[in-house]
Amino acid sequence: MTTYTATVTVRLKRGVLDPEAETTKRALERLGFELDALRSADQFEVDLDAESAEAAADRADEMAERLLANPTIHDYDVEVAES
Amino acid sequence: MTTYTATVTVRLKRGVLDPEAETTKRALERLGFELDALRSADQFEVDLDAESAEAAADRADEMAERLLANPTIHDYDVEVAES
Repeated sequence: MTTYTATVTVRLKRGVLDPEAETTKRALERLGFELDALRSADQFEVDLDAESAEAAADRADEMAERLLANPTIHDYDVEVAES
Repeated sequence: MTTYTATVTVRLKRGVLDPEAETTKRALERLGFELDALRSADQFEVDLDAESAEAAADRADEMAERLLANPTIHDYDVEVAES
């Protein structure tokens, strides 16, 4: 067994309103920054033991499906690295 | 001017309590997943026009310093890609 770190990034799907990001963008503009758009995402770094990187990615994928992401409004991606 | 996407990832510093991550970890364990640790982070994807990737990174860095991260409790990193 090897220890892997799976990084699950959960984003709102295109078209889903993101008031937090909108507020953050306006606050940055009020500070004088120029920006075209701002999107926010949640990232989860999960340390887990698995037989292979593929097995770790599969498990992280299942975690995203079952708990970390809401498939109605979220897209997610999973990256795995040895830790 | 080129349009870049700067990704700012804001993490809690080591040693700072993260009750949200702790709750998420326990919820995953209750679902039957085995994991050693879970850390959560906020990610901001900022689209901006800049003369160079370095200029875009500098501007995103200043956004993190001034608003996106709290230097008392957060570390952050910035990655820039052409978009």
